Amino acid sequence: MKIKSPFFCFNPKSYFYGEKLLALAKKADELAEKLPHLSVLMTAPYADLSTIANNTKHLIVTAQHMDGIDPGRGMGAVLPESLYQAGVRAVFLNHAEHAMTFSELVQAIRKGKELGIQTIVCADSLEEARSIALLKPDVLLCEPTELIGTGQTSDDDYIQKTNEAVKGIDPEILVLQAAGISSAEDVYRMIQMGADGTGCTSGITEADDPEETLEQMVMAVNQVYQERFEAEK
Amino acid sequence: MKIKSPFFCFNPKSYFYGEKLLALAKKADELAEKLPHLSVLMTAPYADLSTIANNTKHLIVTAQHMDGIDPGRGMGAVLPESLYQAGVRAVFLNHAEHAMTFSELVQAIRKGKELGIQTIVCADSLEEARSIALLKPDVLLCEPTELIGTGQTSDDDYIQKTNEAVKGIDPEILVLQAAGISSAEDVYRMIQMGADGTGCTSGITEADDPEETLEQMVMAVNQVYQERFEAEK
Amino acid sequence: MKIKSPFFCFNPKSYFYGEKLLALAKKADELAEKLPHLSVLMTAPYADLSTIANNTKHLIVTAQHMDGIDPGRGMGAVLPESLYQAGVRAVFLNHAEHAMTFSELVQAIRKGKELGIQTIVCADSLEEARSIALLKPDVLLCEPTELIGTGQTSDDDYIQKTNEAVKGIDPEILVLQAAGISSAEDVYRMIQMGADGTGCTSGITEADDPEETLEQMVMAVNQVYQERFEAEK
Amino acid sequence: MKIKSPFFCFNPKSYFYGEKLLALAKKADELAEKLPHLSVLMTAPYADLSTIANNTKHLIVTAQHMDGIDPGRGMGAVLPESLYQAGVRAVFLNHAEHAMTFSELVQAIRKGKELGIQTIVCADSLEEARSIALLKPDVLLCEPTELIGTGQTSDDDYIQKTNEAVKGIDPEILVLQAAGISSAEDVYRMIQMGADGTGCTSGITEADDPEETLEQMVMAVNQVYQERFEAEK
Repeated sequence: MKIKSPFFCFNPKSYFYGEKLLALAKKADELAEKLPHLSVLMTAPYADLSTIANNTKHLIVTAQHMDGIDPGRGMGAVLPESLYQAGVRAVFLNHAEHAMTFSELVQAIRKGKELGIQTIVCADSLEEARSIALLKPDVLLCEPTELIGTGQTSDDDYIQKTNEAVKGIDPEILVLQAAGISSAEDVYRMIQMGADGTGCTSGITEADDPEETLEQMVMAVNQVYQERFEAEK
Repeated sequence: MKIKSPFFCFNPKSYFYGEKLLALAKKADELAEKLPHLSVLMTAPYADLSTIANNTKHLIVTAQHMDGIDPGRGMGAVLPESLYQAGVRAVFLNHAEHAMTFSELVQAIRKGKELGIQTIVCADSLEEARSIALLKPDVLLCEPTELIGTGQTSDDDYIQKTNEAVKGIDPEILVLQAAGISSAEDVYRMIQMGADGTGCTSGITEADDPEETLEQMVMAVNQVYQERFEAEK
Repeated sequence: MKIKSPFFCFNPKSYFYGEKLLALAKKADELAEKLPHLSVLMTAPYADLSTIANNTKHLIVTAQHMDGIDPGRGMGAVLPESLYQAGVRAVFLNHAEHAMTFSELVQAIRKGKELGIQTIVCADSLEEARSIALLKPDVLLCEPTELIGTGQTSDDDYIQKTNEAVKGIDPEILVLQAAGISSAEDVYRMIQMGADGTGCTSGITEADDPEETLEQMVMAVNQVYQERFEAEK
Repeated sequence: MKIKSPFFCFNPKSYFYGEKLLALAKKADELAEKLPHLSVLMTAPYADLSTIANNTKHLIVTAQHMDGIDPGRGMGAVLPESLYQAGVRAVFLNHAEHAMTFSELVQAIRKGKELGIQTIVCADSLEEARSIALLKPDVLLCEPTELIGTGQTSDDDYIQKTNEAVKGIDPEILVLQAAGISSAEDVYRMIQMGADGTGCTSGITEADDPEETLEQMVMAVNQVYQERFEAEK
């Protein structure tokens, strides 16, 4: 279940849960099955994770946060072992809406490596991205905090520079660029500009037909993949 | 699934998860079925909650924390609607290991009432207990922070005073006294001294036979119940 | 230096510091000297507090937050004893921009009483105000969080109800209403509607002439005082 | 007021304040004047900072934390501009007792550079130290969190490795090693093993004669300096 490049991540945050989210997970799973050369990730509120994992096979089930603790005390903590046994194989860390201290982040990345939960770490500046790259997360999300939820995407220059900064430190880290994605066109553009992955929240949750929008976005990732494949022949 | 007096709560915090926790949940469920005049509550890490709820019928499945938000933004939040649909019917709030600001607490209690998730709010002094009682939680946990995990129980005087303080403000609030419970004898003593409920973490998780210890503790609650019933005849 | 009713509080938050703030403090001190039947409070960033206290005599020098700890560990904490020796005689607690857990709030109020630092505790709903009133702070600030910085004031109904809720629990607690105050007229209206005190941030910091605006606002408090005094004769 | 190598930092945390702290500051200032080839730093609770700065000339007055904000909103924040005008020229950031999110840390370092407040950033592992070194703080404090307050010092191997890790990334960053320093001998050993600076809290605050202990510790730093100077001749 290693995250491949290119990949797409549907991140419903706390907008969806239960039945509605499960239906979308099944759709995403179908897409992931049909397009095995891509990775499809989907997050969910914690209490939805095991149901989604139990009803999908090809999707990389992703948590929205985890605490880098070992089993023990920690009332109300998001326990990594509990996530793993529920089927979680990736996790977001240090999102602007769930910021972590630097020590907590270091411990959570370490714990992810120990258990086999891939870490997607958020940075909101080039400076941060470079520092965090030294910690060897699996994916770096480079999202200028100012743009979250605005419907504006990062510009070419920002994306280029972030890619260089991150890959310059560790070429194995995948770069996720997701600021302001609201259409399949945005998805296509992001991947074509060089992001390893992209993702979306409100562009899907607020769409008239979230399943169709999800499909269009995943297909846009696939389109860049196909075009590159053709070009290489 | 209303919490009855007397009740017992097994709170494994982050010590147990997965198979091991599920086995204990099934045991607790059997006990709850056999003793319908008591309530048996059990908490679990978030990603274990739905599996436990799906495999039990009489247990009150309890979360260790929740954020009092509505569906929407909130990356990594513990979404009340997600908990409810997973089968959660009670939640701890403001535990010393997951303290909340006062506004967050007020919102979470309100959200619990809206959804039908009973709230068990932690206070660590008489003063706090009295203030929180005005917010009308379902259960107040009065646990002097200094005693958590020490194996020392609250003394009679503390328990009496807390009961008076809480019931004086709102007689419908149940009082949970759980500091330092490590044996069935402690459980018996707590309920007999007037607590509506009691509970345990490490006394069970570190027992040689956690299932047996859990059973003994629930049976100790029942013993006080039976003795009172006999006495009233 | 007990806070009297009516009172006015200039709260520059982090807008002003150094020379500019000291000049305003001296102005506020003159007003406080001239109007000994009112109280005038002024907050300041921590490192400005002792300079302001050393250069004023009639002003109640107020901190924007404090941690309810005793001298000891606590790197970077806002130490109550340090504030007191610097001349601080009042402190805001639990402001929406510096929220405290309930335990922290209880300890800070207790510490304030021990040292003689009067506590001004913020609540953002009637429910919260009632609970906090049980803790016997000196002043309760009832400010619906939604209105902070909007230039809208609380309406009559909200103010009336808050006063009743707070005074019903403890008539000695003063009520501060400060949401959206931006002119001397707002100040007059607030005090006349029954608030014990009112205050202002950006209405003063962003005024063309902050000193003049401060004076007009304090004089508006005095006007209500004088009118009541006349009416009682 | 640039921090020189070697340097000594007396960090009283929240143990001392007022008169007692001022007396120690004067003593430290005398030592700093007598030994101009060393730097002597001293922290203080926020409300003590300006008094200490006003009464010393050679000491580098140091804050225990600051928030990387610009003047504006921020009730209860530790405002950098307020610290600077009060005479503060260095600040600790991300201490284990006042941990910061990674974004907050990045902003505070940036703000320090803007104003001329030198930043001393705490890391509690080699991994963290390396990442933080990329942010170019002036000083890195490498203190395994487990050792704080235990009276145990870091071992040679840890110190060597940390120096290499930090200087390997940026040779201009000074390395402060301060875990478990309780005597002048510990100070001598730390500096001789290659730390640019060392420091102490309880070894001084709990000494029978804090002023004398402070003097002995600063003189121990000087002794290494003199021995190196002799050796180089």
